[in-house]
Amino acid sequence: MTGRIPLLVGGADDVRTQMILVAAHAAEVDVKTEAPKSAAAPELQFSDKKITYTGAILRFFGRFHESSEVYGSSFYESAEVDSWLDWALMELAEPPVRLEQAAQTLEKHLEQRVFLVGQRLTLADIAASLPLQRFQQQGLVQLGRATKRWLGTCLATEAACSVLSSAPPKGKAAAAATAAPSVAPVAAVAGATPMSSTPLLDRYSSCVGGRTEIKRIMLADGDGKSMVGQKVSVCGWVKTAREVVIDSGAKGFDSLKGKCSTGASMKCTGEVVASPGGKQAVEILVKDAGSEVVLFGGVDAKEYPLAKKGHSHEYLRSIAHLRPRSNLIGSVARVRAALAQATHEFFRSNNFLYVHTPLITAADCEGAGEMFQVTTMMAEAEKDGKPLPMANGKFDYTKDFFQKPAFLTVSGQLSVENYCCSLSKVYTFGPTFRAENSHTSRHLAEFWMIEPELAFADIVDDMNCAEDYLKYCVRYAMEHNRQDLEFFDDKIEKGLVKRLENLLAEPFARVTYTEAIDILLKESPTAKFQVPVEWGMDLGSEHERHLAEKVFKKPTIVYNYPKDIKAFYMRLNEDNKTVAAMDVLAPAIGEVIGGSQREERLDVLDRRITEMGLEPKDYWWYRDLRRFGSVPHSGFGLGFERLIMLTTGVENIRDVIPYPRYPGHAEF
Amino acid sequence: MTGRIPLLVGGADDVRTQMILVAAHAAEVDVKTEAPKSAAAPELQFSDKKITYTGAILRFFGRFHESSEVYGSSFYESAEVDSWLDWALMELAEPPVRLEQAAQTLEKHLEQRVFLVGQRLTLADIAASLPLQRFQQQGLVQLGRATKRWLGTCLATEAACSVLSSAPPKGKAAAAATAAPSVAPVAAVAGATPMSSTPLLDRYSSCVGGRTEIKRIMLADGDGKSMVGQKVSVCGWVKTAREVVIDSGAKGFDSLKGKCSTGASMKCTGEVVASPGGKQAVEILVKDAGSEVVLFGGVDAKEYPLAKKGHSHEYLRSIAHLRPRSNLIGSVARVRAALAQATHEFFRSNNFLYVHTPLITAADCEGAGEMFQVTTMMAEAEKDGKPLPMANGKFDYTKDFFQKPAFLTVSGQLSVENYCCSLSKVYTFGPTFRAENSHTSRHLAEFWMIEPELAFADIVDDMNCAEDYLKYCVRYAMEHNRQDLEFFDDKIEKGLVKRLENLLAEPFARVTYTEAIDILLKESPTAKFQVPVEWGMDLGSEHERHLAEKVFKKPTIVYNYPKDIKAFYMRLNEDNKTVAAMDVLAPAIGEVIGGSQREERLDVLDRRITEMGLEPKDYWWYRDLRRFGSVPHSGFGLGFERLIMLTTGVENIRDVIPYPRYPGHAEF
Repeated sequence: MTGRIPLLVGGADDVRTQMILVAAHAAEVDVKTEAPKSAAAPELQFSDKKITYTGAILRFFGRFHESSEVYGSSFYESAEVDSWLDWALMELAEPPVRLEQAAQTLEKHLEQRVFLVGQRLTLADIAASLPLQRFQQQGLVQLGRATKRWLGTCLATEAACSVLSSAPPKGKAAAAATAAPSVAPVAAVAGATPMSSTPLLDRYSSCVGGRTEIKRIMLADGDGKSMVGQKVSVCGWVKTAREVVIDSGAKGFDSLKGKCSTGASMKCTGEVVASPGGKQAVEILVKDAGSEVVLFGGVDAKEYPLAKKGHSHEYLRSIAHLRPRSNLIGSVARVRAALAQATHEFFRSNNFLYVHTPLITAADCEGAGEMFQVTTMMAEAEKDGKPLPMANGKFDYTKDFFQKPAFLTVSGQLSVENYCCSLSKVYTFGPTFRAENSHTSRHLAEFWMIEPELAFADIVDDMNCAEDYLKYCVRYAMEHNRQDLEFFDDKIEKGLVKRLENLLAEPFARVTYTEAIDILLKESPTAKFQVPVEWGMDLGSEHERHLAEKVFKKPTIVYNYPKDIKAFYMRLNEDNKTVAAMDVLAPAIGEVIGGSQREERLDVLDRRITEMGLEPKDYWWYRDLRRFGSVPHSGFGLGFERLIMLTTGVENIRDVIPYPRYPGHAEF
Repeated sequence: MTGRIPLLVGGADDVRTQMILVAAHAAEVDVKTEAPKSAAAPELQFSDKKITYTGAILRFFGRFHESSEVYGSSFYESAEVDSWLDWALMELAEPPVRLEQAAQTLEKHLEQRVFLVGQRLTLADIAASLPLQRFQQQGLVQLGRATKRWLGTCLATEAACSVLSSAPPKGKAAAAATAAPSVAPVAAVAGATPMSSTPLLDRYSSCVGGRTEIKRIMLADGDGKSMVGQKVSVCGWVKTAREVVIDSGAKGFDSLKGKCSTGASMKCTGEVVASPGGKQAVEILVKDAGSEVVLFGGVDAKEYPLAKKGHSHEYLRSIAHLRPRSNLIGSVARVRAALAQATHEFFRSNNFLYVHTPLITAADCEGAGEMFQVTTMMAEAEKDGKPLPMANGKFDYTKDFFQKPAFLTVSGQLSVENYCCSLSKVYTFGPTFRAENSHTSRHLAEFWMIEPELAFADIVDDMNCAEDYLKYCVRYAMEHNRQDLEFFDDKIEKGLVKRLENLLAEPFARVTYTEAIDILLKESPTAKFQVPVEWGMDLGSEHERHLAEKVFKKPTIVYNYPKDIKAFYMRLNEDNKTVAAMDVLAPAIGEVIGGSQREERLDVLDRRITEMGLEPKDYWWYRDLRRFGSVPHSGFGLGFERLIMLTTGVENIRDVIPYPRYPGHAEF
């Protein structure tokens, strides 16, 4: 949700305008106001869009700031609010032909309640109380005891007081005003309400006397121009001094001398003015009375690692504690957070339960290959200054914390399968580790994985879910992080937005491994692959990218792989040669998702475990799922950093995670 | 979101009823339908509530299944949908006095677009297209080219087809039907549409031919009674055979023999019928034609670890792979997932950015005390069969993966402060580790922590944020997991719901450490604390609980602690004796949150680091934040498992995490 500040065009004494202003205040939304050119209904404008009809505008504010709960605090409350809102708009806002009946309905409903819906003021109360007060003042209706108490409560709320205190005088005069055409400018209201003079302050900034977040200003109506003329206090770190223009006579100016370069932190109180040029449309002018600048922390430009412009990605990695102040890493951080949010929203909206699988594991079936070991024994040995005793080439783990060798997990899949086979649809989202001695731009020792697992689902359901999820995430970023994606399109990957639009445009291609091999064999003479193609091989990056980029020119799902190149838990197909595994390959990225239907038949599972040279008894609990109420189920895994690379175009995985871990690097 | 199935009372040939049915279908919501007693407007009933007004009902469906996107796919789209929805309801649903003008508005808008809003069918299209089609058929309006194309597209959607195909015939007959009173029962429509005969199928269950989630049935209208008479297919594991009654003549019955005990997995296709008695209101009867039962996986009752009832929590821990099938752990899993969701919702709605701080750390400032070491050297040594070489009592880490000693993090705070001092408001939510040799019911070696960090915020802002967050989480669970909380209230902690209501009822108590000591000293003679109270001591559990349970009888925040018992990074107060630290203490639980304002003054920080016997140079990057644009900032940490214990009343921390890790335990 952006901080655009909408413009309300409405008459100041129009009860609908007042309802909207009260709702905006209750929802903690800033609005600017403007008198209408004619006696039209209120209209809300933002960016290039407009919202008409009082109900739509009220609902807009109800959703703007969800935690304000003016649209109810739950799904069902929202539905109740909607009913009462429509009731009020129909029965009360229009000429009151059945006012007495409406009053009876209200009195009956309010006998046992403080507000119309739930425990606090909602849009329903706002829409009903304001017109009702007018009718009462005009002597058009007699209200019951419960309704009077409710009306008093509604009108005493901070939101109502702040708007109505500057509205036309109550009583007969108000009735007269109502009768007059609704053309009086709303500016009189606007000037007196906190809404238009003080844009929403951050809730937890009493420390600095309150502040308005800069993005709220810069994004207002898309470019901030609608904020011109408003007085604001902003806090932040200087990137360039361009956005804020400080007059040498401004209060606090002298404290800045020699300290106000890039990286300095300060608070500026001043007026938003149109920018005479440059990239942004507005600046803050710290000049006139009431303007002020407060320096929190200065910077010695000679020492500041980010003082100069245009640092290499490598250099930024060496100052991981400061690099989020760079445009690149700041944008990555925002997209990363948005994709995490999209992940939870997608799975929750599809009724998946979020499960935290363990990081440390001492399960007998986990091997030590490419796993990090977790121990307290080495520190103990160093404390005692004695080497670790070894017998028959093995350490004695009875004194280790977990009394056996323990490792950091390489996947939550087996653990989450237990929850899947109890609660049907589940997913994990957590860190995963790989002690691979890899220095490539595509591997990390510590990364985040998302692993959904679906009961009663086969490989087709699995592919459907993977495609839906990937598209949901990309669409989410396109909608919530457009500015960041345009930055990446400009600086990192030309054509990024177009590539993402293509990803969303049509269904992914789907092809079996065997079909894929046939295609690659045909293309081999011209494609000239480094590794020759043959059935049974694992597809290399060159093959995967050829399929997605050259053959299908869109994300491509390859499924039904040879059993010998896949894990023991993947379900054996009828052909006895392939397993129900699938990989999602994306153009420019390669594999982003790998998944499979799991082998649910105990006898087949045992045979596969043995074939792979493993011991069925080490998998006793995994086998239990097949002994007791086994069900068909499927799942997949997605490396979260791969998803961010796909969405941003950033090519080095070390730049899409706050603190990358790879051989020799775990500082900060 | 629950799966209650609402009842729509509306006339079958009423265009408003049809609009609602199309919207319901597009939103993938099940509705039952019933003919109205008079020619009233459609009304939607669910549980003890009802929704009137077509707009409110349409919006209800729009929100019901968010991923259907019929209410727009973004915040701004929803506002546009609202505008057009109100427009349609006002200009088209009522007698069309200005129909020509409305048609012009539509034509102009649709010239460059396929749908009214965004890229797909929304409530706006539904509300506008259906009445418009009727007016067109009645010859009341001439539509432009763009509008005709749009109308065709809307009416060709699956949602519209499925409803309209069984509606009254088009053309003149439809016009006649419209003129007739709207009293024809809707049953004719209902019987023919997939909506009422097939309740919403899970999206990813093609594997089993589609299924309806059991909770959708059980929670329909609160108790499932509204589903009576419907045919459903459900999948799951047998807890008791009570919910499903299978006739011995039913298809597949023979396959169940001896395998259908607790834990078996199956699919049952049958009719929902009222239950003749017992806890639940409905059962599924598998008896008549079309009924069927399919066994996925049987169970040998003699071997199934959960065959009997009433297992101890200890026993359940020993079968962590199966215990989510128990009522207790199933409810915990649902509440845990809900609280994770609440956490992300709270912070995101307050503009905090989610940051993934690293798990593995080799920062010089991290000590080895109570930390797990991460290494690849031991496995290497075992592979070679050679002990780890030691020199001067230290191992040689140049050959370890990170080329220095590396550990699992005990807190993301220092790392997240870097992001806070770049991006203002951030939070972490991830696993944290403590190699504490503790066997209590309150400690784990691996647990999840939430750590927000706020720039431009002092200790008061910090306390406000902590209180808001805690209340948000508890309120979220009260609203989304009522049934689970009532289970805990019944089985785990009598009075739980009341305790949670109290927590929400009023502001937390706030008291300085010095005031708290004064109070405790006065109470000492009667309270008889085991550890005597004196200024400078760390408060023990007995003192903390006395304050929250006896003195204030509600959650209590103690702040401004003696500097000597708190960490070096907490901001020194003016008195030079205390630091701006705070703890939130909850009745029955004790400390749930600990936080502080951070020392932002470099000279004071260095003095404190030295006082604590640490080396400022080890904290070079933490100090950099104070050298370059330092800002006041604050944060806190909350152990996620403590929050779950607080919300559920479950007393052993090992029962609120899927796979608890503690000394000697890291299996599964």
